[in-house]
Amino acid sequence: MPVIELEDVQAAARRLRGVADPTPVLTSRTLDGAVGASVHVKAECFQRGGAFKFRGAYNKISSLPQEELAHGVLAYSSGNHAQAVAIAARLLGASATIVMPADAPEAKVDATRGYGAEIVTYDRWTESREEIGARLAAERGSVLVRPYDDPLVMAGQGTTALELLEDVPELDVLVVPVSGGGLIAGCATAAKALLPGIRVVGVEPEAGDDTRRSLAAGERVRIDVPRTIADGLQASEPGELTFEVNRLRVDEIVTVGDSEIVDAMAFLFDRMKLVTEPSGAIGVAALLAGRLDVRSERVGVVLSGGNVGVARFTELLGAR
Amino acid sequence: MPVIELEDVQAAARRLRGVADPTPVLTSRTLDGAVGASVHVKAECFQRGGAFKFRGAYNKISSLPQEELAHGVLAYSSGNHAQAVAIAARLLGASATIVMPADAPEAKVDATRGYGAEIVTYDRWTESREEIGARLAAERGSVLVRPYDDPLVMAGQGTTALELLEDVPELDVLVVPVSGGGLIAGCATAAKALLPGIRVVGVEPEAGDDTRRSLAAGERVRIDVPRTIADGLQASEPGELTFEVNRLRVDEIVTVGDSEIVDAMAFLFDRMKLVTEPSGAIGVAALLAGRLDVRSERVGVVLSGGNVGVARFTELLGAR
Repeated sequence: MPVIELEDVQAAARRLRGVADPTPVLTSRTLDGAVGASVHVKAECFQRGGAFKFRGAYNKISSLPQEELAHGVLAYSSGNHAQAVAIAARLLGASATIVMPADAPEAKVDATRGYGAEIVTYDRWTESREEIGARLAAERGSVLVRPYDDPLVMAGQGTTALELLEDVPELDVLVVPVSGGGLIAGCATAAKALLPGIRVVGVEPEAGDDTRRSLAAGERVRIDVPRTIADGLQASEPGELTFEVNRLRVDEIVTVGDSEIVDAMAFLFDRMKLVTEPSGAIGVAALLAGRLDVRSERVGVVLSGGNVGVARFTELLGAR
Repeated sequence: MPVIELEDVQAAARRLRGVADPTPVLTSRTLDGAVGASVHVKAECFQRGGAFKFRGAYNKISSLPQEELAHGVLAYSSGNHAQAVAIAARLLGASATIVMPADAPEAKVDATRGYGAEIVTYDRWTESREEIGARLAAERGSVLVRPYDDPLVMAGQGTTALELLEDVPELDVLVVPVSGGGLIAGCATAAKALLPGIRVVGVEPEAGDDTRRSLAAGERVRIDVPRTIADGLQASEPGELTFEVNRLRVDEIVTVGDSEIVDAMAFLFDRMKLVTEPSGAIGVAALLAGRLDVRSERVGVVLSGGNVGVARFTELLGAR
């Protein structure tokens, strides 16, 4: 039994109405020419908090009973989920504690603190964020808002595809970045229900292909914490619930290297005037690098976020 | 007698329908907080060619009789007008020759050539682009498409404000970058006709305040070619026709320094995920630097373009 269905995504869309920003779907004649297809970019960099993560976090937190909200919420995140939980909690009158890797991008840490959350840091290479999160949740009585492995979070993220298909009702392919798998689980659920013939393709960094390996193996495979510039895609194992959805609804996973991600960030900057973080650009990177056969097709691609910061951007792109 | 009226802008809007991209109007809670007003950003970085200039160029070239189009068009421009003329000419089946300063940003030169135009370069500090343009036009029989001092160009640029006011019908203030004055002439014409009480404020670089001085003097004042990072705003004198419009319809000119422009570019990048060239960010720079008294007002601001290129962007912002 799949853990979410179209109705869950539609219910999330109703909760998010008037709260999440409907994001634009952008096109570029130059991108179409380079890819050889008709490409529609769902620009979640313009979402509240600068990434799609607000959708899932708000859907989850707004579904909590008032007595649970009173103890606050807690999250562990490399950044965008943190900001999303902080914003959603503040909107709903709850306190938020965020467990963050000590080497998270400064722009994300500052923004999260700016939204009123308390930050607790850990070492990404030696400590387990899951354990720290669970311990703090137990101590404080806070509700842990998981970054992906929760039906309400997955359903919230799926509203990205629901909105895209409202703007562009006919698509042959949907391309979605993959980390823990929550975004693609929600998007695949919505897209396959509305367009049964659509191909749903996930994109992972070459160094972080845990979902690709897991789908090939038919079971969840754990890898080392991937070393990639795509700091939002450093999951080492698919989620338990997301994997149940994705094994049924995701057709294929492709991977791209870090230098291709940087090239895509430059393309999006120069030709589409869009600011994207490495994780956010990976779908467009896969298209520009020819990792998918999409010739003459109608392609939707989720640009998942834009929280890169000027300093990190100039560091990544100045070195090219 | 003013040289353009609302009807001219409305006629331009009809010609541009289905050809120019309607650009989004973006808002940011952080920007509103920093400015203390409700700010609506008209994002012309998403226009064809990456700047508002396509509006005026297409309105002009599409109005030419077929026998004039057959001899091609010619333009002199520091960049965005060049790309606009190149794109519009190609769409209308005419050849385009562009006279460009030798030190124009590489991204703009490459893009213009990519649109199929022939490029002729000159030295910005020692030669007159007006003279070179006039000579080439005479030799080739091409029509010179002026960057601003033409009623059809002004009217085309005014569709920027017309579109903004369709999305946000009530504004107290409209903030517009000023170089030769074509964009603000068209925008002020549309805005004052639709909202007689609106304040129209122009923004110039501190080093390039020819329109501010000219409005104060009551006649056109010529200054040295301004040295500023805002390469799109290096006019040394207002246009003859634009000045006739702007002396009647522009309420005020404010100026900002280059470092404030860079700060605004960083803000737009970090907080709004928008790529802006220095000239494009100057309106937002004036608001962030407190150059206008807009407290609690509804403010429209034209972000006029995003053609900066990764290399130039990292150079400008990496040095902060």
